[in-house]
Amino acid sequence: MTGVQEVDQSVNLDLLKQKMANFAKERDWDQFHSPRNLLLALVGEVGELSEIFQWKGEVPKGLPDWKEEEKVHLGEELSDVLLYLVRLSDICGIDLAKAALRKVELNAIKYPASKNYTNSNNGTAEAVDDHPKAP
Amino acid sequence: MTGVQEVDQSVNLDLLKQKMANFAKERDWDQFHSPRNLLLALVGEVGELSEIFQWKGEVPKGLPDWKEEEKVHLGEELSDVLLYLVRLSDICGIDLAKAALRKVELNAIKYPASKNYTNSNNGTAEAVDDHPKAP
Amino acid sequence: MTGVQEVDQSVNLDLLKQKMANFAKERDWDQFHSPRNLLLALVGEVGELSEIFQWKGEVPKGLPDWKEEEKVHLGEELSDVLLYLVRLSDICGIDLAKAALRKVELNAIKYPASKNYTNSNNGTAEAVDDHPKAP
Amino acid sequence: MTGVQEVDQSVNLDLLKQKMANFAKERDWDQFHSPRNLLLALVGEVGELSEIFQWKGEVPKGLPDWKEEEKVHLGEELSDVLLYLVRLSDICGIDLAKAALRKVELNAIKYPASKNYTNSNNGTAEAVDDHPKAP
Repeated sequence: MTGVQEVDQSVNLDLLKQKMANFAKERDWDQFHSPRNLLLALVGEVGELSEIFQWKGEVPKGLPDWKEEEKVHLGEELSDVLLYLVRLSDICGIDLAKAALRKVELNAIKYPASKNYTNSNNGTAEAVDDHPKAP
Repeated sequence: MTGVQEVDQSVNLDLLKQKMANFAKERDWDQFHSPRNLLLALVGEVGELSEIFQWKGEVPKGLPDWKEEEKVHLGEELSDVLLYLVRLSDICGIDLAKAALRKVELNAIKYPASKNYTNSNNGTAEAVDDHPKAP
Repeated sequence: MTGVQEVDQSVNLDLLKQKMANFAKERDWDQFHSPRNLLLALVGEVGELSEIFQWKGEVPKGLPDWKEEEKVHLGEELSDVLLYLVRLSDICGIDLAKAALRKVELNAIKYPASKNYTNSNNGTAEAVDDHPKAP
Repeated sequence: MTGVQEVDQSVNLDLLKQKMANFAKERDWDQFHSPRNLLLALVGEVGELSEIFQWKGEVPKGLPDWKEEEKVHLGEELSDVLLYLVRLSDICGIDLAKAALRKVELNAIKYPASKNYTNSNNGTAEAVDDHPKAP
């Protein structure tokens, strides 16, 4: 019981990578998992993710008005994007875990926490323009 | 040294979630991180990922002919997609780690390993059609 | 003067197709314009289009608060998507003009104008769910 | 008969814009057609377009091995992208026809036809790098 919870809490990217590799191997799907095939599959899943949000207008954080089944569906589409992303990285020979940690550090250098990124809070385009592209 | 490697090997999704949350908080960016803002940022990063592959034609696994700097760039774009995906999930109140493990299990039920998914190996559309959409 | 305006008003898809074909031929770019290369280029442009909207929150129709230069930029990104879409269709041997007219007719059959698509106007997810996926 | 063919051959963007506007008005869908709703719907359709190509590996021009029904499906997805693109432009107050013609001219200035864009034809990444991003 505790073991299962512990596993849930420590879902690391290498575990997912291994699960995806085994999954493909057991079904003889490696033949389909070329980099660009997986990339297009990822784009397809991002499309399905977008469809969930497409007619909703602005949505508040935490999705307070969403039905439980909508949230489950959203979790599935977010997962599909993640799983293809992990698989694409693996097939390209990229260590996604290491790359992601490095990118967070690069972002911290690029956007110092001490800097003031917004000049106004009136929500106009001008204020938003001060917000950089990166996360 | 060993400590650093250990950290690299156990990059779990909750760690990335926490790093992203801290990053946004320290820069007062929470005001910009609404679900649909983050979703569009994710789409933007998927576009940058696609640009890396757009003129290359089919690319072999492991990217044997790519320069080191191209692989580093690829790692950065894959990471950007991951970081926004983790942040989007967090802002939506979705436990991405748990959802991803559940999705792998659902996929295993949907596509039993014992089933033969391809009837031919001649690479025609007919053969590919037998490969299901999910990973 | 009148001639130029007339050309502007009758920008048809076949004209754009021909312009794109000539453009590629004059630069010896046909070698790069395979279907999946063009598709990934299209995805890249959709990413750039999304970046324009990503930190803005909900945006009112007509973009009343946008600067002229922002609108020009938006027009360029919308055009990039269109141009790759026209080129992709051409390279695939699809008559996009004919297909688009047919799709509008199919949509009209699928979603009769007489039907009432929304049961409520309170902006909840339930109301939005009544709006179908197609345009 | 001849009239219908003539219409098909001159499908211009303003005609599609008008058809889309009427379509939305007749179904009371204007309330859903905000810029970002339409943008996400566009991303959803690009995802469906990508799904058609995702497991196929490289695909030759003209799609010689595709079944007729696959081509019809492809035409529908290409059209869905076009129709949302036209609608999004209209709702944003952008003259897509004019913007697209201007973009073609800008591209012609940016990439002169007289320049030699490729140094080699061996299909390596180096050669492809010489091909610019724009169409």
